[in-house]
Parts: sequence; structure tokens; C-alpha cells
Amino acid sequence: MTDTIEPRVQASFDRQGLMHTLGGELLEASQGRCRVSAVFDPKLTQQHGLWHGAVSAALADTAAGFAAYTLMSERQPLAVEFKISFLAPARGARLVATANVVANGHRLKHVQVEVTSLDDGVSTVVALALATIASTRSVTE
Amino acid sequence: MTDTIEPRVQASFDRQGLMHTLGGELLEASQGRCRVSAVFDPKLTQQHGLWHGAVSAALADTAAGFAAYTLMSERQPLAVEFKISFLAPARGARLVATANVVANGHRLKHVQVEVTSLDDGVSTVVALALATIASTRSVTE
Amino acid sequence: MTDTIEPRVQASFDRQGLMHTLGGELLEASQGRCRVSAVFDPKLTQQHGLWHGAVSAALADTAAGFAAYTLMSERQPLAVEFKISFLAPARGARLVATANVVANGHRLKHVQVEVTSLDDGVSTVVALALATIASTRSVTE
Amino acid sequence: MTDTIEPRVQASFDRQGLMHTLGGELLEASQGRCRVSAVFDPKLTQQHGLWHGAVSAALADTAAGFAAYTLMSERQPLAVEFKISFLAPARGARLVATANVVANGHRLKHVQVEVTSLDDGVSTVVALALATIASTRSVTE
Repeated sequence: MTDTIEPRVQASFDRQGLMHTLGGELLEASQGRCRVSAVFDPKLTQQHGLWHGAVSAALADTAAGFAAYTLMSERQPLAVEFKISFLAPARGARLVATANVVANGHRLKHVQVEVTSLDDGVSTVVALALATIASTRSVTE
Repeated sequence: MTDTIEPRVQASFDRQGLMHTLGGELLEASQGRCRVSAVFDPKLTQQHGLWHGAVSAALADTAAGFAAYTLMSERQPLAVEFKISFLAPARGARLVATANVVANGHRLKHVQVEVTSLDDGVSTVVALALATIASTRSVTE
Repeated sequence: MTDTIEPRVQASFDRQGLMHTLGGELLEASQGRCRVSAVFDPKLTQQHGLWHGAVSAALADTAAGFAAYTLMSERQPLAVEFKISFLAPARGARLVATANVVANGHRLKHVQVEVTSLDDGVSTVVALALATIASTRSVTE
Repeated sequence: MTDTIEPRVQASFDRQGLMHTLGGELLEASQGRCRVSAVFDPKLTQQHGLWHGAVSAALADTAAGFAAYTLMSERQPLAVEFKISFLAPARGARLVATANVVANGHRLKHVQVEVTSLDDGVSTVVALALATIASTRSVTE
């Protein structure tokens, strides 16, 4: 059994230049839930060689937007804002951001995101985020 | 006259793999203030070809950390959390994140960040952020 | 010369039970800007007898909503979310939250808020906030 | 069986003038967890007669601080910042803020808070918050 990924979400994800640059991978996108992952690479680090917190933020922001998108039919997701708290240094071989829509308004969706660092089967929560995603007719509405 | 960049800040910035990946450039780092910039590139986009909001967040997060670092002597900056509000779509040729320390505690510094998009001499504020940066003896404290 | 307060904003403010309870006073509300104030009282304290941070948050939240309301004609403001950073302990005789709309979208307005503590003519910034206010036809939209 | 409340937490809670003013009640405080509640009263409303969002924020902020305090021995909690997202209008007879410490650093604790509205046995999540609480020797450190 594999996780479900809506084709239109995969297509939109694939058009994000930044996800290619960060090595982002879409693991799941369906029914208000989305998981986005990346594999450790020295090109993603801060000054001490650990994952840069901004990569956790980028995965969280992206997962939040696509989690919201799974609940939109003819509209597009637009990030209004997000907040991220860094709970622990990220040192793992892989990061996974798991986003869940927690309030599904027509115009606005609130999304909760957990970022975990995976290493040798050990999972550590390294960040938590809350995001607000608007549904718009166009990205410039 | 040029903007001041403390050499130890430039050295630390240069060790950030992510800043190389995003094309980040350190414009200023001195006395509680830091500016970090990037030039538009298709590798930094969201699905509609505009700047990905996570790039604004990455520049803001990085500028906040180094603004705080300019006020530390023997300690290292560690991002505790940040919040970013996206005020307008970012379409410009260049993004600049300008961070100012607004509360300079020994252990914690609050930093305010403005991200502007520059195009043909026109500057638009595309995001505002508030960040908390801890000063630590090591990144794992 | 006195600060401008739109009558419909004053009327709405006066219907807020919480503002009566906290002794909140509307100082200004016009053209995307709002100031709300309260005078120190032991009923507004935390455990050490200083202003409770939640009072700063309540004044900031309220000022943000009414700043947004000054830019709405037939709609009502609804707080989507806010973030507040506490820069310094609040000890003054009076707190003032000054809110300015920094992005005036039709559906969503971003608002920046500064909370200052005033004592014997000395003003200290004790908190900064960023808020998102939606404009809705009804509070339950 | 009743929920545990550490006596020193109850004593500190009882010294908060604001909690008396809002009718706040400490329901639980032990081992990194705290619940604070209030009963609906017209003195806690916004302009449409529903719970003012700032009351959710006040209960969340207070629960976060005391959840952190249960994990401190000789230090005091100080709110560094918090972010709250309003998921739904609050209409219930009672609000309960449930805070859990999710990262227990020596100097800084991250706390996640859920605010629920209770009415006739129905529970609705009306807000989620993330807070950063510092442990200090004094409130002015």
C-alpha cells in the first residue's frame, strides 16, 4: 500500500523551482494532509553543518500549502503567514514535514505542521509550525 | 562609503551551504543590523513562477540570526522561532531582507525583519517577520 | 487638535465587554491606524505584580482588529491569528497599543502593532505583534 | 481521581490579578502540562457577544507559562513570545486551554496549546497556539 498523491498536486509541486533546488519530494497529498521530505545534503546546511532551520521552514510552508490545496477544487493556495518553532537541532539523514488542515474555511485554512528528523530509524520532532493558507482565484488576488 | 560587514559574520555566512544554494549575499552586518539579499532565479520559485515565500523566510531567518550575532562576543546565534507574514506577491529581480535587533537580551534577542522586492528601482515590502534568536555556547546547548 | 475616532469604530469598541473589563480606551481609529490604551491596575497583573503579557496581547489584538475595520465599509473584522513578541517587562502607568495596517487586501489585512509602556513621560516598547484580520460578512462566515 | 495541581503553581496562579479578573481557574498543573479554564461571561466578549479572542490568548499564554513552570525548580517562567491561530468562533459556556511542553530546554521551553470551547458536552477546538517560555532567575533578567 502506498500513500495517496493527487495528480494535480504532484503537477503543481513539480513546477516549484525551489523544491527541485532543495531536493524536496512529495510523499503524500490527499484529503487535507500532505507530507514533504528532503534528504540531507551539505548544500542545505547552516554554519555548523547541521540542517539550516530555513529548510525545515521551507518544507513546512510547502506541505501546508499543498495540504490546503487538496481541499480546494477551483482555487489556488496562497500562503498568508506562518510561524515555526525550532524544538531541537536537525541532524538526521532525512527531514519530513507533515501538514494537516485543522480548520477548513472556504477562504482560509489553518494548517498545523510537524517537522521530524529521521536517522537510523529514530524520529525526532525538530520543529512545529502553524500556517494560514488562503484560497484565491489567482495568486495576485 | 560601503556598508560594514564584520569579518567573523562574513566567515560564518560563507559556511552556510544553504546560502550558497539560494545565491544569498551578505550586504551588511554590524551593530545589531544585517541585510541579506538574493537575485531572482527560476530555481527559487513556487508553482506560478514567482519567488517562493520560503525564500523570503530563509533570507529573513538568516538575516535575523546574523543581526543577533553582531551583538554576541563569544556566543553563537541559534534561531528559537520566527513568524513571517506575506504582505504581497514577490516578483522583483532582487529580494533583500533587512533585520534589526529590537531587544538585546544577554540570552535572547528579538529581531524584526522586513523583506523587500526590488525591480527597476521600485521597492515593495513583501514580508514582515519577527524572530527570536538565542545566544548559546554551542548549537546543541 | 485631537486624534480622529470614527463613530462606528467607537460604537463597536464600546460593545466589547472585554475592553470594559480591562479598562481599555480607544484613543484613535482612522485610515488604517488605531490606538488602544489601558491604565495600570492590580487586576491586570501577572504573579509578580507587573502587567500581564496577555493584557498587551489583548490591546494589540483589539487595536489590530479596529485598525483593519477603519478600512472596511460593509464588512466586519475577524481576527485570523496573531503573534506577539515580548521585548521587555511592562511596568508603566499606562500601556498603549498602536496598530497600523501594512497590507490592505480586500479579504485579508496584515497589521503591525507596537505596544509601549508609559511612565513619567518615558516610553518603552514592551511588545511587537503581527496580526492577520479577515473582512467577513458575518462573524461566522 | 482528580487532576494534579502543584501547590506552588496554584499559589503563583492565585497571585495573577488578571486571572481573577477573567475568572480563570487552574484545572491541572503537573509534569509539563497545564489546563486553565474560564466560564462565559458578558464581560469577556467582543462586539458581537461571543468570547473575545484575546481571552483565548490570555488562557493559552497563562497555561503555557505554568506548564513550563512545572518543569522548573528554582526559576521563574517568563513568556518570550506566542502565536495563536483562531480556528473557529468561540461560543461555548466554558473555554479550556490545555498546554503541553514539547521541548524542555534548561533556558527555553516550547509549549503547544489547544483552546477548546465546551457547550452541552460538545467540545470544539477554537484556537491553537505555540509559545516560548524562558526560565529566569528573576522576571527582569
